[in-house]
Amino acid sequence: MEIYELLKGKNIKNEQEVKVVARVRSNRPGKAVGFLVINDGTSLLDLQVVYKSNLDNFNDISQVRVSSIIEVIGKILLTPDKEQKLEIQAEDIVILDEASQDYPLQKKEHSLEFLREISHLRSRTKTFQSIFKIRSVAAYAIHRFFQEENYVYVTTPIITENDAEGAGESFIVTTLKNDEYEKDFFGKKACLTVSGQLNGEAYAQAFKKIYTFGPTFRAENSNTSKHAAEFWMIEPEIAFEDLNFNIALIEKMIKFIINEVFNKCSDELEFCDKNLEKGLINKLKHISNSNFERITYTDAIEVLKKAVDNGQNFEEKNIFFGLDLGTEHERFLCEKHFEKPTFITNYPKEIKAFYMKQNSDGKTVAATDLLVPGIGELVGGSQREDNYEKLVARCEELKIDVKGLSWYNELRNFGYYKSSGFGLGFERLIMYITGASNIRDVIPFPRTPRNLLF
Amino acid sequence: MEIYELLKGKNIKNEQEVKVVARVRSNRPGKAVGFLVINDGTSLLDLQVVYKSNLDNFNDISQVRVSSIIEVIGKILLTPDKEQKLEIQAEDIVILDEASQDYPLQKKEHSLEFLREISHLRSRTKTFQSIFKIRSVAAYAIHRFFQEENYVYVTTPIITENDAEGAGESFIVTTLKNDEYEKDFFGKKACLTVSGQLNGEAYAQAFKKIYTFGPTFRAENSNTSKHAAEFWMIEPEIAFEDLNFNIALIEKMIKFIINEVFNKCSDELEFCDKNLEKGLINKLKHISNSNFERITYTDAIEVLKKAVDNGQNFEEKNIFFGLDLGTEHERFLCEKHFEKPTFITNYPKEIKAFYMKQNSDGKTVAATDLLVPGIGELVGGSQREDNYEKLVARCEELKIDVKGLSWYNELRNFGYYKSSGFGLGFERLIMYITGASNIRDVIPFPRTPRNLLF
Repeated sequence: MEIYELLKGKNIKNEQEVKVVARVRSNRPGKAVGFLVINDGTSLLDLQVVYKSNLDNFNDISQVRVSSIIEVIGKILLTPDKEQKLEIQAEDIVILDEASQDYPLQKKEHSLEFLREISHLRSRTKTFQSIFKIRSVAAYAIHRFFQEENYVYVTTPIITENDAEGAGESFIVTTLKNDEYEKDFFGKKACLTVSGQLNGEAYAQAFKKIYTFGPTFRAENSNTSKHAAEFWMIEPEIAFEDLNFNIALIEKMIKFIINEVFNKCSDELEFCDKNLEKGLINKLKHISNSNFERITYTDAIEVLKKAVDNGQNFEEKNIFFGLDLGTEHERFLCEKHFEKPTFITNYPKEIKAFYMKQNSDGKTVAATDLLVPGIGELVGGSQREDNYEKLVARCEELKIDVKGLSWYNELRNFGYYKSSGFGLGFERLIMYITGASNIRDVIPFPRTPRNLLF
Repeated sequence: MEIYELLKGKNIKNEQEVKVVARVRSNRPGKAVGFLVINDGTSLLDLQVVYKSNLDNFNDISQVRVSSIIEVIGKILLTPDKEQKLEIQAEDIVILDEASQDYPLQKKEHSLEFLREISHLRSRTKTFQSIFKIRSVAAYAIHRFFQEENYVYVTTPIITENDAEGAGESFIVTTLKNDEYEKDFFGKKACLTVSGQLNGEAYAQAFKKIYTFGPTFRAENSNTSKHAAEFWMIEPEIAFEDLNFNIALIEKMIKFIINEVFNKCSDELEFCDKNLEKGLINKLKHISNSNFERITYTDAIEVLKKAVDNGQNFEEKNIFFGLDLGTEHERFLCEKHFEKPTFITNYPKEIKAFYMKQNSDGKTVAATDLLVPGIGELVGGSQREDNYEKLVARCEELKIDVKGLSWYNELRNFGYYKSSGFGLGFERLIMYITGASNIRDVIPFPRTPRNLLF
């Protein structure tokens, strides 16, 4: 029986006979009676096993080491008044495999930095069991959200020749030891994708509503707690719909994901609240119950100017139309001014990507960022430019290779009426939901500059 | 309203007023009345719109080109006796965007080869609407299957330094134009993953039941209908369980996926049955209703020997223990001999990977391949070697870099009792379910040698 079934099952009875295979988390032997805490990975919660000297192999059990695998046969003792609702009175314990005494995760506390060096083992700790279970449940919630709304999941290519944002630093994919790409596998220079959006847009023209969910890459030499060379993105795209639809969709999706995590990961959230971010659960409940705010970029600039006038101490105090908002400005807006998640809309075109729809004011584009308390920007989206000439002109202004993007731009000539979408960085979402403060701790095997292990 | 809701909705009434935005598939104008066939991508089925000369812009509508986007306001006319169960009597039609006359998908039939050259547009054809909708539904079915059984979804790394099978030809990931990898982004040689299994195994030790679902890569210079440089794999791994558990899981999963596709894609399957593979639906029903067969490799060799004696005309007629079965042998076993999906178990260790558990006979490993009629091998799995010394010895025999894999091998020292898993090539499954005969036609933007477009 799995420990998950034991602890969550509804028909578990006192004195019921059970058999469990699990890993030893701790062993507290005594003269006549000992206590094993075991976990089989199916539940964050452990199971306590009481073993007594009547067992033939009592002495062996008393010495069994942390991380060994054992099989326990015994009777359930319901203990509704204790923190653990039941324990097992062992009748037979078989040591299936004894762990080496070099096992690095002995009972003492370990730093997150140390645990990163043993990424192949850290998922056995409660911290990472919580984070990676939540990651899994959130990933499924995203698929469920879109599939139940009849979106088509499109796997966009990882190896690509185009650079969606025109700014990303791409990894080169090659089979050679030099740069004679015309002799290379693909006969040309190939890169790892920085975004699936452009390919996704082509599919939205076919299916109306699509989403991508896959890995993306940046060869950015940034050793910060927020940057990784490899991370996952969700990029939905909806044809025939505008920025307002997009904004409503983002809000609905974020709430859906958080509610799914609440429903399926209450133990894990409690653990994260206690150990990673105090107040996490209240923060998430607040998000889930808020009506997200909306403000234009132009109005947000006015709010920030007033705040500076009123003595708000930003590092960047020079607030003007055209400023690329910093995290401090974003957090001020959603944390202090509105005290809830906030959509900023209609950014100056100069600070946004080439494919965003130019508004009739000639200055702004139909873009939105969702800012959330505690983190700042969580989602970025836009309505796409639908006018072929404007799009090509903008590419040329920004010195983007029009030829490589001709297939993308020409979508506008073959029947095109509005298209909107957004990008959600999956790891940023998981950091937000778990309270983890370093992106390296929400990716099973993180890749950062000069760090490629496992 | 979306066409999907219109055609599948239960409360659609005669004379009901509706508004639809969609793409024109065809236009058949007449003197007093014309017919538009439109599709908005939410349904494989089209909607017919009848427009009459009482419309102000009747002449413009009569000339509207294929792929233009229009908005139709009109009344529903239920036509239960016709193939299409309803049509729209237009009261107003707005041409939202007129498509160029250069649009390559005019009404005539196109070859799959031609359509591959316009991968950004081919998803608008019924063939690719069917294939990619089924792909999306099957992907979600896989997530659903594992999540409902409490498996944890693990995203294993794409950029890696190890080569799981020891045989794959890997792509190099670099930021340089030469091979001075110590100066490179990761400070060492980096590759694109050929399998997430090894990383997944580490996580099964933490969560018991995990699965991966992500892209994998082979720099194999094969221009066949079955090989792509980039494809998606599903790799579940279960700790504390043996090969028998694995076999039962594979059968249950395959049936679940097929049933989900039947439930959600009946129109698409019918289209594929008519246009891609006659008899497809019967084939899939047969799979879903069969009890899969099991036979050991050793017994399978005897069956094949007898078949040769009885005149079976294999290209490779030299059948012996140690032979790496060809597709012809695999298909004979599941199509002619058993007439149902068949698990072959316990292969000679020489033809299988280093990490498979060596059986006590000293000759075979606890591996299985699932063979299915019409294709041969669909899934490959095994129980993993649990003995550290045997595993390392096998690595050394096969000249596999033991140092790079030390983290993987040492899992066996830290409490390890059985672990089993399998790999399912997602595109091979989609080819099987849709009847598509070329892998390029089941990947949105396929990557093959000297082919990197979009």
